[in-house]
Amino acid sequence: MNNTFSHNPPRGMRDFYPEDMRLRDRIFSAWRQASEISGFEAYDSCVVESLDTLKRKSGEEITEQIYTFIDKSGRELALRPEMTPTLARMIAAKQNSLSLPLKWYTIAQCFRYERMTKGRKREHYQWNLDIIGEESTLAEAEIISTAIYALQQLGFTHETVRVHYNSRMLLSDLLIKTGIPPEYHRMTFLALDKLGKMEISEIKKMLCEGGLSENLSSKVLQLMEIKSLEDAANIAGNDAASIQILNEFQNYLSIYGISPFLKFDISVIRGLSYYTGIVFECFDIKREFRAIFGGGRYDNLLAEMGGKKAGGVGMGFGDVVISEIISALHANDQKTPPQKCAIAISYMSEEQKPVAIKIALHYRKEKIITDLALHCEKARNFFSRAGTKQFTHAIYIGPDDVQKGTIRIKNLLNRTEIESPINNPVSVKL
Amino acid sequence: MNNTFSHNPPRGMRDFYPEDMRLRDRIFSAWRQASEISGFEAYDSCVVESLDTLKRKSGEEITEQIYTFIDKSGRELALRPEMTPTLARMIAAKQNSLSLPLKWYTIAQCFRYERMTKGRKREHYQWNLDIIGEESTLAEAEIISTAIYALQQLGFTHETVRVHYNSRMLLSDLLIKTGIPPEYHRMTFLALDKLGKMEISEIKKMLCEGGLSENLSSKVLQLMEIKSLEDAANIAGNDAASIQILNEFQNYLSIYGISPFLKFDISVIRGLSYYTGIVFECFDIKREFRAIFGGGRYDNLLAEMGGKKAGGVGMGFGDVVISEIISALHANDQKTPPQKCAIAISYMSEEQKPVAIKIALHYRKEKIITDLALHCEKARNFFSRAGTKQFTHAIYIGPDDVQKGTIRIKNLLNRTEIESPINNPVSVKL
Repeated sequence: MNNTFSHNPPRGMRDFYPEDMRLRDRIFSAWRQASEISGFEAYDSCVVESLDTLKRKSGEEITEQIYTFIDKSGRELALRPEMTPTLARMIAAKQNSLSLPLKWYTIAQCFRYERMTKGRKREHYQWNLDIIGEESTLAEAEIISTAIYALQQLGFTHETVRVHYNSRMLLSDLLIKTGIPPEYHRMTFLALDKLGKMEISEIKKMLCEGGLSENLSSKVLQLMEIKSLEDAANIAGNDAASIQILNEFQNYLSIYGISPFLKFDISVIRGLSYYTGIVFECFDIKREFRAIFGGGRYDNLLAEMGGKKAGGVGMGFGDVVISEIISALHANDQKTPPQKCAIAISYMSEEQKPVAIKIALHYRKEKIITDLALHCEKARNFFSRAGTKQFTHAIYIGPDDVQKGTIRIKNLLNRTEIESPINNPVSVKL
Repeated sequence: MNNTFSHNPPRGMRDFYPEDMRLRDRIFSAWRQASEISGFEAYDSCVVESLDTLKRKSGEEITEQIYTFIDKSGRELALRPEMTPTLARMIAAKQNSLSLPLKWYTIAQCFRYERMTKGRKREHYQWNLDIIGEESTLAEAEIISTAIYALQQLGFTHETVRVHYNSRMLLSDLLIKTGIPPEYHRMTFLALDKLGKMEISEIKKMLCEGGLSENLSSKVLQLMEIKSLEDAANIAGNDAASIQILNEFQNYLSIYGISPFLKFDISVIRGLSYYTGIVFECFDIKREFRAIFGGGRYDNLLAEMGGKKAGGVGMGFGDVVISEIISALHANDQKTPPQKCAIAISYMSEEQKPVAIKIALHYRKEKIITDLALHCEKARNFFSRAGTKQFTHAIYIGPDDVQKGTIRIKNLLNRTEIESPINNPVSVKL
């Protein structure tokens, strides 16, 4: 026995005790239900990916942060930092048998070796929605409405969260009107993505070092002062394809009834270089936390992985930020009321054990959560123990109960009690 | 674009396409439901564990097979090969606030670097049930009955699977009666665990090399010919503690009504050295596959991790063997009938798109799985596409439908069709 032995998980990684799992399950259930109701199909792959696949397509920042290792046969492997390269690999592998468009979802653990700050760990779970092989902006609307559905399941409304959207195609049109040729756009996007994270002077420096003149760099930064889609349309021109696509997108949002959740925001760029069209990020309305989810349209992803050219829209929604927001919101709440019945059963002495087992089996057959004490205990200990867990009902069996042939079922929520025959226990309800 | 680029996952690791996820979800759901109904609480931790934790407690074979790596700060990390060391670490970390007994479950991905054979990959998901801090063999009965409940959910009966059980305590009693002192028991268990995997002569060699005489080695192997608990009791003595515990265990199995699933089997030993009491392994009745699940009682696990001494019972149930058995059983089956409604919606031209969106939103609000076509398509293409997926109903909207204000809802299972007002679509049922 060594008392200096650490009982902590590795740095930046999380243990989930039962009380932590309750929130995680609530989030995962909302994600899963939203995906399934909207007709997304589940896929998954191993958290270990070949480094080659990850290097082939990854955001610029990510590659340095990958956890890599070499297996016993000398293979270069890695813990995936995101799911998109794997998704592209899986689709490319079956591109001749899969019929597009695909609507796929996954909940995947992803790893990044980075400094830990609020809303960032070295691992997190990320819900991904992707629609591959669809040009219509209905794809963007489906993905955003599915993410909003999940947030609604978790109790959020348009008064507590907001999806900010923009378009890289629009930004390109605006940059061209400003006199910046296409070959500078990718660099410009990556610099502009630092808005709010770096000083304006530093961003300007990045633009200049990227090849723009002092004057053009200033003009680029002026574009960031555009406040509305109308203002943007006045510069880009109402006949610009980017504006027409955004108008169509807004029309879909209105049919979906989710316009109040959305807001045009010229400063939304996204860090990854593979986005080519509409991009979006969801925040808590007070902007106290990092982005809740984000994504956008990519048109060349599959081709870069050696697949056919097929456009798509993707979204990533991590579990860390949303957990922090929910915990902060509910910090002062009462214990959340139980969603389903859960019965605790115990007994005074070993003689009542067989009866207790039979009652437990009866309720389990009815698919009711039933915890059975594994050894006899005092009534006081049992009720105090049952009170600290998520039980709705408690049954304590003593020798008198067995003799009388009845049991008393305590409802722990409303403090009532009913009597029931021991051989055919009555059903319980919330 | 590079056509030589590999689209395979790393060797020994699995991709799950939507058709693979359906089976996996069925298995995971059975595991989760069985755990929850029986009152086990979910826990989880990160797939990356510190090597120190894993080395501290691991089966003898496992340590060589661990995937290890060093992070950028020089920490020795590993992909966990099993969940038990992590469980012991988590409990030790909170031993002063957790009240025993605990009933915990998890579904955890685990990694082993090994040669791949039938039923073995380099990663698998393992359902773990553990009861910590309970002496009563009711703990063994609860765990085995919960695992059987999951198998029943998956369609298995006592005619297709069998749980073989034995007791290391009984084996120890038998070894002592044979004249083998306790210090040789652990070595003897590990040698006997190779029965059926290695030649008898090799096992005998292991026993001799472990310090037993030729004569004692032969006697040990003769013990393996014991056919029933009664025979064992005749040698060990009916008053032996191990026999009394096994009788109590059998009594619980009978109250649970699961005796037909169980069979005493002197050859069940289990490879891990930490088991101290009843051990069990579940097989398909024809013994065509590897063990479906296995486990047993350990009494010193927590203490070895620097925690208090607290006994427990644990079980591990992997996804690979059970998937192979289910796939083999159902290889000739028809497509399994859908469990819930799923509607596909499409339309002839872009003009019907807004109507189609509204109908999709209507059904999604009713929590029915609803897939919406993202662009217009020909009726023939739509119905052929809908037929290949898991849809139960299909709605195709043309200009005439919009004009008439009605839609036709096709039931794809019984080939009937009903008409419904377009503004208030009727509910659908299986």
